[in-house]
Amino acid sequence: MKKKLFLKLVLLFILAGDMCFAQTTSKNIIEDFKPSELNQPGKEYPQVNSQGYARFRVDVPGADSVRVSLGLGGRGGTKLEKMEDGSWMGTTEGAMDEGFHYYHLTIDGGMFNDPGAMNFFGSLRWESGIEIPAHDRNFFALKDVPHGKVEQILFPSESTKTIRRAFVYTPPGYGINQSERYPVLYLQHGWGEDETAWANQGHANLIMDNLIAEGKSKSFIIVMTYGMTNETKIGGLKSFDITPFQTVLVDELIPYIDANFKTLDEPESRAMAGLSMGGFETRLITLNKPEVFSYYALLSGGVYVPDDIKDKSTVKLIFESCGSRENPERVNNSVKSLKDAGINAVSYVSENTGHEFLTWRRSLKELAPKLFK
Amino acid sequence: MKKKLFLKLVLLFILAGDMCFAQTTSKNIIEDFKPSELNQPGKEYPQVNSQGYARFRVDVPGADSVRVSLGLGGRGGTKLEKMEDGSWMGTTEGAMDEGFHYYHLTIDGGMFNDPGAMNFFGSLRWESGIEIPAHDRNFFALKDVPHGKVEQILFPSESTKTIRRAFVYTPPGYGINQSERYPVLYLQHGWGEDETAWANQGHANLIMDNLIAEGKSKSFIIVMTYGMTNETKIGGLKSFDITPFQTVLVDELIPYIDANFKTLDEPESRAMAGLSMGGFETRLITLNKPEVFSYYALLSGGVYVPDDIKDKSTVKLIFESCGSRENPERVNNSVKSLKDAGINAVSYVSENTGHEFLTWRRSLKELAPKLFK
Repeated sequence: MKKKLFLKLVLLFILAGDMCFAQTTSKNIIEDFKPSELNQPGKEYPQVNSQGYARFRVDVPGADSVRVSLGLGGRGGTKLEKMEDGSWMGTTEGAMDEGFHYYHLTIDGGMFNDPGAMNFFGSLRWESGIEIPAHDRNFFALKDVPHGKVEQILFPSESTKTIRRAFVYTPPGYGINQSERYPVLYLQHGWGEDETAWANQGHANLIMDNLIAEGKSKSFIIVMTYGMTNETKIGGLKSFDITPFQTVLVDELIPYIDANFKTLDEPESRAMAGLSMGGFETRLITLNKPEVFSYYALLSGGVYVPDDIKDKSTVKLIFESCGSRENPERVNNSVKSLKDAGINAVSYVSENTGHEFLTWRRSLKELAPKLFK
Repeated sequence: MKKKLFLKLVLLFILAGDMCFAQTTSKNIIEDFKPSELNQPGKEYPQVNSQGYARFRVDVPGADSVRVSLGLGGRGGTKLEKMEDGSWMGTTEGAMDEGFHYYHLTIDGGMFNDPGAMNFFGSLRWESGIEIPAHDRNFFALKDVPHGKVEQILFPSESTKTIRRAFVYTPPGYGINQSERYPVLYLQHGWGEDETAWANQGHANLIMDNLIAEGKSKSFIIVMTYGMTNETKIGGLKSFDITPFQTVLVDELIPYIDANFKTLDEPESRAMAGLSMGGFETRLITLNKPEVFSYYALLSGGVYVPDDIKDKSTVKLIFESCGSRENPERVNNSVKSLKDAGINAVSYVSENTGHEFLTWRRSLKELAPKLFK
């Protein structure tokens, strides 16, 4: 069961490239392409149009072949064609899902990033990123509202004999009222990613700033650290062991956070959530440590079954979500069975998205207002 | 005078690639190459050896030519050669300066980053980075000492109608003693770089953590924001105007910092420093606003002359530094003339480095203990 779920998650992640395309493959491409908002300063390409097509242009006059990893599944991405000026250009065959996508170039058989795009850590490496503007992007936009901080901390870890990094979102006004203390959400990235993902790709800080400004969420702290997921090689599932990360998180990071931030440190004020393999980790750790967390959330990261929960009184909320192009029925069925068993459970399905960051941004937006009530 | 200095700074920066090589070009290369510490996770190349040579390997079997921008000046960097396995390999002709270097690949006429290396914002783009271990690297190493935080803040800027980003280093223990307040150093990056440079390439946070742990520096806050330097095109010097950035810094960021952090907000508790073009900005702003800052530092960023200082009583310290391969005489002469005029001035020359980050890391290490005495 555990192994099957894990394999499914890893496969889902790998297949993400095949899942981020909308159904439309219209050939009536509207020529309103604009630079992607994730481009490096001053770079004109890559571009996106209002339909969700992406267009690439790379200057590499002496190349024999240039391909972009984004494209319709199973066809090897988008082949670029050589232009008269020596650049290579091409447009995706289909409209892409709204939201964030990782990609890279293959030039004469070598894998490189697009010099026009900014990089994001995913697939175990810093990859190029492109953003197809989502119709609902307002909820993660940078707005003129009070902003919290994203703080990089370095905490000692005896179990791994390392000094480890985490990012901590503190909400607007944190620290100003000296006596105010805050609940904490521990929020995990997916396989191939690291502790930078939720702020960089996920805009977790902006989502919270906007929710708080609108009075829709309580102010709370979010802690994002590296889930040690990437040491787990595909195929090496037998050796997967949650203990090393659980030790870092529960025995080292949580005490450090409680000692160095203005936290509420009872279990009723602590949540854990994760996307994809971070959800897999969340499920294992919350079930192993029901005395530590009271709110559990799996974002495209598997489901709980009622028998998982030994003592219902320790669980304030179970939140399960995924994209509509994943397996919503599984999430909905799970939540129904949890509710039938008397557990406070909520499901959320992100419309027209797959195993990708817009699903998880939206999931955080849905989850946050339900936490720490 | 102003224009000449500016041009010199920009030229120095552009020439940096030519200045980061030690004099030795021995052909007796010691085969003790190890992966650079700035490589992406698990990447074997690029590598460096104990003499300071760098070796590169890039998998791009179909390419016709691959070059690395690092190499002896004027010879177009290091040409890689095609290996039997389809990869391209090569070693720099000379030993490189200790410390951090930006670089990129040129593949069949196109400019790309090395897929093995992490990226750092410099030269107006995210470039590959490589680190030649410095003999004195202990002072910026990640050690098991109390660590401060690097906090990303988003502050409103009316003058630019934007919400702007800054990074704020807060020292270990900040916020724990509620009544303790701290002086502030405003620390600027160079041309082509941005607000990420001093923490990423400069290790400013680790330098401060180590100095504070050794009792060598007072605990203070460091604020790093984008100096708007990159809007100034080379050749467009006539249009250079410090006013827009000065307004953001002095009228918008400083009040925001004083309102949101536990600062000491008198001029005696405020310093400004900058590297290269950030030094040029520091000089202009400190001279325009002597009522705001009391400590001034130019790191490879020009010099003050005694006539610059209208009221000596407002200047607690002038610090000027550069690499020994820049123009140390200019810095030393300037400091002598400032001292002769009764101003507390200090010079520092970094041995065997040029216009590059090891010079500036060392400069911060020398500067910090002299601040806020």
